[in-house]
Amino acid sequence: MVVVMSPDATDEDVAQVVERVEEVGGEAFVSKGVVRTIIGLVGDIESFHHLNLRALPGVADVHRISDPFKLVSRQHHPERSTVWVGTEGRRVPIGPDTFTFMAGPCAVESADQTLEAAQMAASAGATILRGGAYKPRTSPYAFQGLGVKGLEILADVGRSVGLPVVTEVVDARDVDVVAEHADMLQIGTRNMANFGLLQAAGTAGKPVLLKRGMTATIEEWLMAAEYIAQRGNLDVVLCERGIRTFEPATRNTLDISAVPVVQTQSHLPVIVDPSHAAGRKDLVVPLSRAAVAIGADGIIVDVHPHPETALCDGPQALLGSELRELAQVARRFPPLVGRELATTP
Amino acid sequence: MVVVMSPDATDEDVAQVVERVEEVGGEAFVSKGVVRTIIGLVGDIESFHHLNLRALPGVADVHRISDPFKLVSRQHHPERSTVWVGTEGRRVPIGPDTFTFMAGPCAVESADQTLEAAQMAASAGATILRGGAYKPRTSPYAFQGLGVKGLEILADVGRSVGLPVVTEVVDARDVDVVAEHADMLQIGTRNMANFGLLQAAGTAGKPVLLKRGMTATIEEWLMAAEYIAQRGNLDVVLCERGIRTFEPATRNTLDISAVPVVQTQSHLPVIVDPSHAAGRKDLVVPLSRAAVAIGADGIIVDVHPHPETALCDGPQALLGSELRELAQVARRFPPLVGRELATTP
Amino acid sequence: MVVVMSPDATDEDVAQVVERVEEVGGEAFVSKGVVRTIIGLVGDIESFHHLNLRALPGVADVHRISDPFKLVSRQHHPERSTVWVGTEGRRVPIGPDTFTFMAGPCAVESADQTLEAAQMAASAGATILRGGAYKPRTSPYAFQGLGVKGLEILADVGRSVGLPVVTEVVDARDVDVVAEHADMLQIGTRNMANFGLLQAAGTAGKPVLLKRGMTATIEEWLMAAEYIAQRGNLDVVLCERGIRTFEPATRNTLDISAVPVVQTQSHLPVIVDPSHAAGRKDLVVPLSRAAVAIGADGIIVDVHPHPETALCDGPQALLGSELRELAQVARRFPPLVGRELATTP
Amino acid sequence: MVVVMSPDATDEDVAQVVERVEEVGGEAFVSKGVVRTIIGLVGDIESFHHLNLRALPGVADVHRISDPFKLVSRQHHPERSTVWVGTEGRRVPIGPDTFTFMAGPCAVESADQTLEAAQMAASAGATILRGGAYKPRTSPYAFQGLGVKGLEILADVGRSVGLPVVTEVVDARDVDVVAEHADMLQIGTRNMANFGLLQAAGTAGKPVLLKRGMTATIEEWLMAAEYIAQRGNLDVVLCERGIRTFEPATRNTLDISAVPVVQTQSHLPVIVDPSHAAGRKDLVVPLSRAAVAIGADGIIVDVHPHPETALCDGPQALLGSELRELAQVARRFPPLVGRELATTP
Repeated sequence: MVVVMSPDATDEDVAQVVERVEEVGGEAFVSKGVVRTIIGLVGDIESFHHLNLRALPGVADVHRISDPFKLVSRQHHPERSTVWVGTEGRRVPIGPDTFTFMAGPCAVESADQTLEAAQMAASAGATILRGGAYKPRTSPYAFQGLGVKGLEILADVGRSVGLPVVTEVVDARDVDVVAEHADMLQIGTRNMANFGLLQAAGTAGKPVLLKRGMTATIEEWLMAAEYIAQRGNLDVVLCERGIRTFEPATRNTLDISAVPVVQTQSHLPVIVDPSHAAGRKDLVVPLSRAAVAIGADGIIVDVHPHPETALCDGPQALLGSELRELAQVARRFPPLVGRELATTP
Repeated sequence: MVVVMSPDATDEDVAQVVERVEEVGGEAFVSKGVVRTIIGLVGDIESFHHLNLRALPGVADVHRISDPFKLVSRQHHPERSTVWVGTEGRRVPIGPDTFTFMAGPCAVESADQTLEAAQMAASAGATILRGGAYKPRTSPYAFQGLGVKGLEILADVGRSVGLPVVTEVVDARDVDVVAEHADMLQIGTRNMANFGLLQAAGTAGKPVLLKRGMTATIEEWLMAAEYIAQRGNLDVVLCERGIRTFEPATRNTLDISAVPVVQTQSHLPVIVDPSHAAGRKDLVVPLSRAAVAIGADGIIVDVHPHPETALCDGPQALLGSELRELAQVARRFPPLVGRELATTP
Repeated sequence: MVVVMSPDATDEDVAQVVERVEEVGGEAFVSKGVVRTIIGLVGDIESFHHLNLRALPGVADVHRISDPFKLVSRQHHPERSTVWVGTEGRRVPIGPDTFTFMAGPCAVESADQTLEAAQMAASAGATILRGGAYKPRTSPYAFQGLGVKGLEILADVGRSVGLPVVTEVVDARDVDVVAEHADMLQIGTRNMANFGLLQAAGTAGKPVLLKRGMTATIEEWLMAAEYIAQRGNLDVVLCERGIRTFEPATRNTLDISAVPVVQTQSHLPVIVDPSHAAGRKDLVVPLSRAAVAIGADGIIVDVHPHPETALCDGPQALLGSELRELAQVARRFPPLVGRELATTP
Repeated sequence: MVVVMSPDATDEDVAQVVERVEEVGGEAFVSKGVVRTIIGLVGDIESFHHLNLRALPGVADVHRISDPFKLVSRQHHPERSTVWVGTEGRRVPIGPDTFTFMAGPCAVESADQTLEAAQMAASAGATILRGGAYKPRTSPYAFQGLGVKGLEILADVGRSVGLPVVTEVVDARDVDVVAEHADMLQIGTRNMANFGLLQAAGTAGKPVLLKRGMTATIEEWLMAAEYIAQRGNLDVVLCERGIRTFEPATRNTLDISAVPVVQTQSHLPVIVDPSHAAGRKDLVVPLSRAAVAIGADGIIVDVHPHPETALCDGPQALLGSELRELAQVARRFPPLVGRELATTP
């Protein structure tokens, strides 16, 4: 950490900072400038945080220099991780050597619709099935998902098409039942900072797909992953799904740069959700091409057999012809970046 | 609702939209332009939502015209509401005729610190005591609050200084225990879209202070209030606390315009939190002046007897001299906008 | 400045930074931590910039500590400045002791409309007349202003009602003709970073009203003022007019906190434009109350005798009754913050 | 256009809107709902704009339905355009069939540095040379470019390596001299809404590279292109270079989705600047891969023979090894999206 003193700080102010730092076992290096003094702190950062140096007289600012996350950081874990999803002949990797294609309906509406969507997904090359049983909706009057019944349908369909399944959990009280039925828990954009839910997911015994909060910085997103990791679960896959900006042409702005930035800072896999980022189905294929090319570890997309009757996000679900185009991208692009499309065993 | 057809939409496309709308009992008015056709829909909006018109062939866009919230809307409830907080000789109003001053420590750290802060708050004119027992923190390694013990301390201190208390609840599982100890439940910025928590707060039997999500639009914020109201609790007070923008000089950007905008759209009271908006104690008094002047129904500020040792957000807690200045503002400014400082009975 | 080395930087990397800094006459203080080394630089910051330290091997980051602006900084000029606008019996101050009310039509459309608007403005207590002759418009097909003829009308009207006038200049080639007719040059939000225009305004011999770029940080805004000051013109008044955020309820988000932030960092006066910030006339009076209360040195608002036929921004122009309400605010609120409404001599 | 009346609008209010619309030769279709009335307008949109309908009594909102740009719109020009840059044996296309690689130093500093950078660029496959002679800098104390001397150096170097050159113009007064020396004029992000400069570029007789304003919507960007086109110059190439968001990990957030969005709405070519978007050289190659894959018509990148002594933006200039990697991307990726790398004749 670096403490920046204000121009009118006195020698006593500087001495007090040094004293506090040394009291907790740290070292303080003073650089006295013409206008300002800056103090470099060396030692245990956690102990410095408790000092509340920002509130001391004469202190203008305190800059953190190191990353605040530890377990998910690449600094002490330089190898990028692979997370495996599913069991018994349906195990799929997400990691640096593969490109993993996840697809399925936004919401599980019925057994038929889910099966049909799963077959579409599987025939396009997807090897992880997505589908929502609990839907976080802005309006209390909108369809909120089928709940446990949706979980059962999804699990049945996953078994019948031979794919592991991922589904969203929106409440810490539901983590157990979701973990019972799903191969991977999804934490959605609105819950990225729901710390109780993150901690519950940390002990659920299943891998977690952690979407970026639509207004979270990359650092906050990695701190959310740290919450899960700190409870003992390092099987976390990050998912960039667009951030909120002033641009109205797309529902959110896909922050494609986040992929290499995360891969530099963390060993966790990172995938892209082009469907929710754009909110427009005509952008799903181009954004998926960009995702493979930049080096994402996978994508997750919405498909629906009958988008015009979908109970949720129909406008962004791919139709048959678009899905065939996406299937081609998923096969042809990964080799250009030294990867191959992940398959079930 | 208005359906905008794309320039290449066919007559059949238009006819299909009209047919769908009429099937659910609505009326469709077609305006055929040179380039585009637009269709105005009249009838029950909820039923139109399920039609998923956006996914029909030839549809370019669908514009919603009406507000999506109902119970919290001022349209059917033109009188602005007053919410009463506390019981038995400690009842304080928040509403259009008063200006309510809430203060207290960011976090409850100990009985002594809480009592000292409460006395500071009360002597400055505050009539509702705030203090956090559960703290949502970005880092899993940061102080997370004293939990139930913190609730007990806060309730004790509230009784001893004669003020009702408000405290944050971060998990639906804690709503009952918090409602047992507190006079008002606070839902924080990170949980504004935690719909399970909102619904639990809707049945807790206590008024709710609902902070705006730091990246939520005003409409999303009012929809979050609608979640609470829909469960039968209309005692909701909204709190503007700054939104995330590109400006780094303040922690967030206080959206002061949100106060009159909310008051136009909703009958619920709306207050301002200048401490968390700015993250700098030198701005708390000026922003509080602006809040009274624009017509906010109250403010909530951080005070701490010893900011330099605070476990949370010390840098923004007011010192004695600043608090005295704020006390003057709270007394002198409300009459200019036709209000008086709210007091305990 | 502080140079942060990456965790894998070598001793040679550190030595190279130190050497470079010393070559240009600076001092480098090295703080060697367990994970990283940080280097505090003391000396002439400009000379450090040319070193391009960020591009040296082993350098992770370079933090600037001091403000980059000089002439407009309050650090070396602690007294807040007063800028005087107008001449010969029409001189009006903008500064720390007064509250200056500027008003007029968004665009000069005709002599009659301008005179009528000026009389409305004057009777409400305004002492500087605004009006646009050159209008920067998003569309090349929209009304672009009357140009020189508009300048002449505005100057005539200003003389006839006895008020100095401020008008926008959008092109460096027009600075001379605008300075000839106007008492103050306005540089608009879209041109805040038009450095050629800023420099031309710096030698025009008239005070400048510099609006904040709708997406400029406060620091960038002060740097734009520095461009004007560096050419010898320190008569610069800053104008906060809203920034671009994700909130759609208002055209821009008025960053009211910018007022005290600027006053802390710069000695220049700062006023508020509530009309363009909100883009809604119902918010102009409440935002003006907030502006006075927070300590702004003035406001600038749109008035138009017939908003429904205005060629530009009609929806935000105040009507008679609203203007009377604003006149009351301008008289009654400034004394609460130790100011008085500025008047012509 | 659609006019939305407020819930309390009277029949007279509706009639007045209809009357006004009909007065200018339009048609108005009234849809009377239970709560609100909406009115669809059909006819000449420009004439409706002058009506200022938003200011009429009873009008709540006016929605524009059509795109406001015409000449650059794809609606009346469905074929995507190719813009040719350069003359006499150095003519390079930018359009739908090719991928055009532009590179060069951020600033022209000397003849040697420019030549060396140009040779680096050419040997990596670049066929248009970029380099800045006029640099818009946030600080008036920073290097502002060599001006005319820089233009001469750039033109000389372009001839000697056999590549056409593109360079930025920041002031309308410089358009002629820049057009004399350069094959293409660049308008930078800070000047995207400098309408005088846009209009001057519209008559300069050279193609224009128009960067997106860092806080401009796609619609505003296309309107800026319309300003150039309206003066008779349709040889405009758009350049996405990142937008301002809350994410601090990159200097700006590359809005990669803007590429397909622009290609849907406009016939003009669109390229990507990964160097200025990210501000970090480690992201230039991954972002360039994403740009090719999504279907951009080209990229423009910073190269510098000695980044550590660059006078401008050294940290983002590619080194030799990175440039070789980029050269591979430029050769191998375009065929996957049905394009080939553009070459000089």
